[in-house]
Amino acid sequence: MGWEEKVRRVVPYIPGEQPKQKGIIKLNTNECPYPPSPLVKRKAAEFRTDELRLYPDPDASLLVKSLADYYGVKEDQIFVGVGSDDVLAMSFLTFFNSDRPVLFPDITYSFYDVWAELFQIPYRCPALDEDFRLKKEDYLSENGGIVIPNPNAPTGLYEELDTIEEIVASNPDSVVIIDEAYVDFGGRSALELVDKYENLLVVQTFSKSRAMAGIRIGFAAGSSKLICYLKDVKFSFNSYTMNAPSIAWGAASILDDGYFKETVGKIINTRERVKKELSALGFVFPDSSSNFIFASHKSIPASELFEALKQEGIYVRHFNKPRIDNYLRITIGTDEQMDELLTFLKRYI
Amino acid sequence: MGWEEKVRRVVPYIPGEQPKQKGIIKLNTNECPYPPSPLVKRKAAEFRTDELRLYPDPDASLLVKSLADYYGVKEDQIFVGVGSDDVLAMSFLTFFNSDRPVLFPDITYSFYDVWAELFQIPYRCPALDEDFRLKKEDYLSENGGIVIPNPNAPTGLYEELDTIEEIVASNPDSVVIIDEAYVDFGGRSALELVDKYENLLVVQTFSKSRAMAGIRIGFAAGSSKLICYLKDVKFSFNSYTMNAPSIAWGAASILDDGYFKETVGKIINTRERVKKELSALGFVFPDSSSNFIFASHKSIPASELFEALKQEGIYVRHFNKPRIDNYLRITIGTDEQMDELLTFLKRYI
Repeated sequence: MGWEEKVRRVVPYIPGEQPKQKGIIKLNTNECPYPPSPLVKRKAAEFRTDELRLYPDPDASLLVKSLADYYGVKEDQIFVGVGSDDVLAMSFLTFFNSDRPVLFPDITYSFYDVWAELFQIPYRCPALDEDFRLKKEDYLSENGGIVIPNPNAPTGLYEELDTIEEIVASNPDSVVIIDEAYVDFGGRSALELVDKYENLLVVQTFSKSRAMAGIRIGFAAGSSKLICYLKDVKFSFNSYTMNAPSIAWGAASILDDGYFKETVGKIINTRERVKKELSALGFVFPDSSSNFIFASHKSIPASELFEALKQEGIYVRHFNKPRIDNYLRITIGTDEQMDELLTFLKRYI
Repeated sequence: MGWEEKVRRVVPYIPGEQPKQKGIIKLNTNECPYPPSPLVKRKAAEFRTDELRLYPDPDASLLVKSLADYYGVKEDQIFVGVGSDDVLAMSFLTFFNSDRPVLFPDITYSFYDVWAELFQIPYRCPALDEDFRLKKEDYLSENGGIVIPNPNAPTGLYEELDTIEEIVASNPDSVVIIDEAYVDFGGRSALELVDKYENLLVVQTFSKSRAMAGIRIGFAAGSSKLICYLKDVKFSFNSYTMNAPSIAWGAASILDDGYFKETVGKIINTRERVKKELSALGFVFPDSSSNFIFASHKSIPASELFEALKQEGIYVRHFNKPRIDNYLRITIGTDEQMDELLTFLKRYI
């Protein structure tokens, strides 16, 4: 037989390209076009590498406390991980341990089905409606758990909190995960509901609105019981996931709320302007509440535009998947970057 | 029923205490008493936090290349993770996917059974002999995989590479993982065998000999086929595990081989001196090839000594487990730290 018979074989998630050449306009992985808070820079300048000889705090208390204070929950209601992907992977492993199917939309973050496959969790993907809207009733049948991204990716659409709450309230026998990677760019967070529903887990990230994709921080908030189960699994996997710079710099980032709000505000303003310009150029798109626009042109195929943009050194994301293969996901960059994009599109179209 | 019915429940690994008070002598988690290379300090001073807005390189190529160059293997033979715990957890998930039991010693790193439980992998723990030596024949029967720490923890004993090779060669139908967290402190690495045996995975860490426990880097070397399977699972879990500081600073650390060898040499010298002094004080211990000594006193119970040392602000590790509950695992600190330990022990005994 041979050792390969015993190997778990999976089809991995493929992240957006991280091209190494300089001078490109990178609008393909929903990063923030602005740097992290100056407080992070100051913390980094003070960082003492001599202390790296010691293990970091396994509880990442400094970071956990800053998040708990900021979001008005108790420290035992916060879980942190190596990006929200780590938090979500641990959550799938912890909470979706039954033989009933986990539910998430057919068009959504393409990592969900990868985790389900990896952990051999059954799943079902109810179709969004033709406008890419969630059909609430799809999430009211028996299930092994629910994951809803809000705003959704790659559509950018936000579902009202009432809808989310109804789904959470109707599923006391399942954990409902609301993946809010993009919520800071529009919409109310389900965080305000975590004290009301023991089965609700809200996941967010530092990679988008907090401009710290390179430091790898994600977090979850929920009932202390839920967080306790999640920590038990995490401590059965890797005691020390958060390294010393991520704990120190992440906590610093949370403290600078003014900078955070200013950055997010700039991105929202740019997004709203770009929406108008794209419409004028003949694009259609769901009304984004995120830091990207999911756009389709009425006459030029997305795959053609994708290649033309790439030739020009402008990277966007194209998903070669049913229902969305004629769309481009365009991250909101700086005003200058978006002007270059728009100038090229005007010329091309 | 309720959502808790669907939760995976585990008994997590409990890491050594990370006390927050100052002024203690911390000999409980096998950290390096010396700081990382000055090159790491320099890299940290140059670190540009503005670039944190971007995702890190998902392949951590800079770090992977530095390791491949240093150890004389190809880049596709190296896998990196968030500490060797992350590498080992991913390896368990990837390679131990059969219904036959995975084998590892009864006295060993206490995370192995935790991972097996987490991933619902059957396992069996052949007993070490009365001198805590591996019995080779225990690893020649049918199995679902093998994990051998070399040197072993918490015993500190190194098994000759011939023994390891025989086990690897006799198990072509299983992946054999050699966990070499402590190999730099004594003994030949199985790395020299990775081109000869497709089923061999060698795991090492930056947390001990490289004095970077706080940055969280571990790595594995093996055949490119083995590493490819491991990467597929890793990319199904979290695309971006290594953050930007860990990639940059880890690579810098590898470049400073002189500093690395000097540090390791100092620890070995201290260890050999402390062995003599402990013997003179009536301690017995396996002959350590690691950065710790696993010692038992001929008349004073380990639990009593553990508490007495803690009172004095000297933290060591005590495992309340069968066969080893009368031993203390004492990390090798600086000469000054060890002198304080020895002075106290002389007075106490």
